[in-house]
Amino acid sequence: MADLLIGLDFGSDSVRAVLVTADGEERATSVHSYKRWERGMYSDAARSQFRQHPLDYLEGIETVIRGVLKGQDASRVRGIGVDTTGSTPCAVDSEGVPLALRPEFAENPNAMFVLWKDHTAIREAEEINSLTKRWKIDYTQFEGGVYSSEWFWAKYLHILRHDEAVRAACHGFVEHCDWVTGHLAGGPVKPSRCAAGHKAMWHESWGGLPSEEFLAELDPLLAGRRAELYTDTFTADVPVGTLSPEWAEKLGLSTDVAIAGGAFDCHMGAVGAGIEPGQLVKVIGTSTCDIMVAPDLDHCVRGICGQVNGSVIPGMVGLEAGQSAFGDIYAWFRRFLGYAGEVDLRQLEAEAAALPVGNVLALDWMNGRRTPDANQHLTGVISGINLGTTAPMVYRALVESTAFGARRIADRFRGEGVPIRSVLAIGGIARKSPFVMQTCADVFEMPIKVAKSDQACALGAAMFASVASGVHPDIQAAMKAMNSGFDAEYLPQSENAAVYRQKYQRYCSLADAMEKEIMRHV
Amino acid sequence: MADLLIGLDFGSDSVRAVLVTADGEERATSVHSYKRWERGMYSDAARSQFRQHPLDYLEGIETVIRGVLKGQDASRVRGIGVDTTGSTPCAVDSEGVPLALRPEFAENPNAMFVLWKDHTAIREAEEINSLTKRWKIDYTQFEGGVYSSEWFWAKYLHILRHDEAVRAACHGFVEHCDWVTGHLAGGPVKPSRCAAGHKAMWHESWGGLPSEEFLAELDPLLAGRRAELYTDTFTADVPVGTLSPEWAEKLGLSTDVAIAGGAFDCHMGAVGAGIEPGQLVKVIGTSTCDIMVAPDLDHCVRGICGQVNGSVIPGMVGLEAGQSAFGDIYAWFRRFLGYAGEVDLRQLEAEAAALPVGNVLALDWMNGRRTPDANQHLTGVISGINLGTTAPMVYRALVESTAFGARRIADRFRGEGVPIRSVLAIGGIARKSPFVMQTCADVFEMPIKVAKSDQACALGAAMFASVASGVHPDIQAAMKAMNSGFDAEYLPQSENAAVYRQKYQRYCSLADAMEKEIMRHV
Repeated sequence: MADLLIGLDFGSDSVRAVLVTADGEERATSVHSYKRWERGMYSDAARSQFRQHPLDYLEGIETVIRGVLKGQDASRVRGIGVDTTGSTPCAVDSEGVPLALRPEFAENPNAMFVLWKDHTAIREAEEINSLTKRWKIDYTQFEGGVYSSEWFWAKYLHILRHDEAVRAACHGFVEHCDWVTGHLAGGPVKPSRCAAGHKAMWHESWGGLPSEEFLAELDPLLAGRRAELYTDTFTADVPVGTLSPEWAEKLGLSTDVAIAGGAFDCHMGAVGAGIEPGQLVKVIGTSTCDIMVAPDLDHCVRGICGQVNGSVIPGMVGLEAGQSAFGDIYAWFRRFLGYAGEVDLRQLEAEAAALPVGNVLALDWMNGRRTPDANQHLTGVISGINLGTTAPMVYRALVESTAFGARRIADRFRGEGVPIRSVLAIGGIARKSPFVMQTCADVFEMPIKVAKSDQACALGAAMFASVASGVHPDIQAAMKAMNSGFDAEYLPQSENAAVYRQKYQRYCSLADAMEKEIMRHV
Repeated sequence: MADLLIGLDFGSDSVRAVLVTADGEERATSVHSYKRWERGMYSDAARSQFRQHPLDYLEGIETVIRGVLKGQDASRVRGIGVDTTGSTPCAVDSEGVPLALRPEFAENPNAMFVLWKDHTAIREAEEINSLTKRWKIDYTQFEGGVYSSEWFWAKYLHILRHDEAVRAACHGFVEHCDWVTGHLAGGPVKPSRCAAGHKAMWHESWGGLPSEEFLAELDPLLAGRRAELYTDTFTADVPVGTLSPEWAEKLGLSTDVAIAGGAFDCHMGAVGAGIEPGQLVKVIGTSTCDIMVAPDLDHCVRGICGQVNGSVIPGMVGLEAGQSAFGDIYAWFRRFLGYAGEVDLRQLEAEAAALPVGNVLALDWMNGRRTPDANQHLTGVISGINLGTTAPMVYRALVESTAFGARRIADRFRGEGVPIRSVLAIGGIARKSPFVMQTCADVFEMPIKVAKSDQACALGAAMFASVASGVHPDIQAAMKAMNSGFDAEYLPQSENAAVYRQKYQRYCSLADAMEKEIMRHV
């Protein structure tokens, strides 16, 4: 009888579980959509406020784990691994309980998880950037040099400033992945290196989180808050504990089940896809997350999202970059045309694919630019339009622009001394759109493989569960045993490569000119 | 019984006649679509070849003049005035007959009129520009400094080079307006100052047309061709002659009917609208033609289409500028959205008008840029796009961009010492779209009046007919007596003016940056 492992993957809209054997065979999957979130509760898109109720998560855990265990031998389950979106933190009480789980805060969005894409803390992010640039330490140096409104401290300060009741009751601010693992283990939070390292400016070199002095200077409301948080952080192979008696009973599992450390979805996805040094793993969905690992990196890579020791694989520096919008751009164009009528994106894509590479040239900044060199002021551009320009031509240009944006990230890695020897793609777009993937391969002038599992993140979480539970000795062994390989490979087509090489130069030139132009008027 | 006058206005797709009294009262109008043209004959849009058969014009003349005379007292008709598009020239035989009217050339597009928008002569235009820049005289200096493939000499050379049979039979190249007036009068052509001055590089200062030496150097095929053409040109108030017996019989008119000189449609349109010094007359349709007159202009205005003494009003310098696309841009966007479904442009416009001035910023170069500073390499741009950008937002930005492009022309006139004291609009868009006109007024920060007549070009032609026939002593008197005034006036709305002023600065800045960027890759 095989050992079984559970990977829990909390996405933006739903949580999914995958049940796998110790050699990677997928036994079952189950998905649960967040009920309150689905009804639009607690959020306000016009103000970019996106909040999620902890009950949505708790209900999801129960549903999907019971879902994957149906008809399986639950006694064989050895461990549970968890990944979530991030930075998605929540105000907690002195017991570490999310305030929204207390009756008096049950309907208060400020007492809930602040989803990664919530942008209510733009002002706080600006203040953090401004202060750290004149501080003795630039705390953003391992996060590409720019702190984002999507991240931990900006959100924490925003909540403290805007909700007096929450401020009074709050004794900490906990990332989604840390709360879930701690909650399942029924013990204190064991902070994720991945989460804290990328989003809370935690770094060994300055003794953990930013100093009390810095935080109090940022705002006196933060004075004393640092001591309520944590000093150490942990890689995901380190167990947080074992399943609490309450959860064990609820799920029909043993209290021996190990709970692995949490991390962000794309980082665990890279592990699930079998990342290795020199390989760029691209998680391609509505946006992209580009992950690399480097065994020996002793300098700062400029303009990426973060470099964190052990965020992906313990003992290696994990590097994260990404595009703020990818599939979201195609979806936007469909909505845009939707003014006139329903459009079948597959049909549009087929027509675009049949066209030659044209003169329409777009910049993929419809949601700003995450990397290289984060800049949320940037906006999308479509150029080269004439009176004969059609929707398929523009769609093709949009696809090309996302591939060019991806190439620019790869070029930045290379330029910063991180060579790329291979490219592996996971995520919805990677699996669903051959045209997009072929364009990426042509633009990259490199083969791109697509991972076989469409549950790479959950699979990565299950791999960490296998290590935390002792099924495999370390994550490398787990990856070797459980990796499901790839099932498609896109080879660059030489006749297009030359055309794209030239067009990519024009993309870079246009990007530089437009960035200068846009920033002149900010 | 009132004297009657006929204005014949040859547009790109149809010819119209208007019958008016000597005090401007409109008695009748009639329109005829070119039959062969309508069926797409002799043209090839993919190659930008646009040719019109002279029979389309002849049939049109008969139909529309008989049309307006129905039920009228034809014996009261005193004169006929003619305007046409241009440069729209045709190869003629030694008798001045368009070659396509001879049986052996009846189906040969090279023996037909080469419509203004035909771009088959791009290479020839480049050669003309290249040669004149190193010649002792820059023959393009009164035409904005750049010769276009849409103009006389480029087209003439192209035809001579590409059709041996036409070359052998051809003894001249005649503008549409000149052929029609000469043909109606049954005598030799009396070349229009407006046509020759704008398109054939005719100027008094260098003795008329470019020198034989220049033309032979351009291509030996042009050697000796100059002498077949003309030395003098004439303003439209000078009669070409009287109606030929053949035409008189065919139309039921007297042979005493005076035939006025021809000119281009927009120039006569400006007269029909009652242009005066200091007034910018904008003919706003698919593209725009911007006309001014200056009694005493002794310097070259840089970057416009042309400045020609007497092209609009005899004794004044006529100035022409314009945008390569205006209404065409709105029509393009409708076609673009048409991929998804039919769009009601009125509804789209209403939704766009209800929006605030937004961050989407477009450049109106979808058909290149005619003025200021002609540049056919330029292409349209839509910038400032985010994931919430909708079709009405882009439509609004397109309307704004056409207004900004118009303002940039006005600013050029001012910057070149031609003050603008008032603005008068004519043409389809001016009469049909209050939103576009209001936007123009807001962007211009000046009131814009819209002429009452929707037949301003034909009315202008009728005014010249009144002078040529002696009904009025000169064109100023004719304009005073026959002008139908204006029926709408758009006043700038101060709250929008400030916003547009700022956005116009961004438009200019983006335009400069994009022009540099596009030209870097030409």
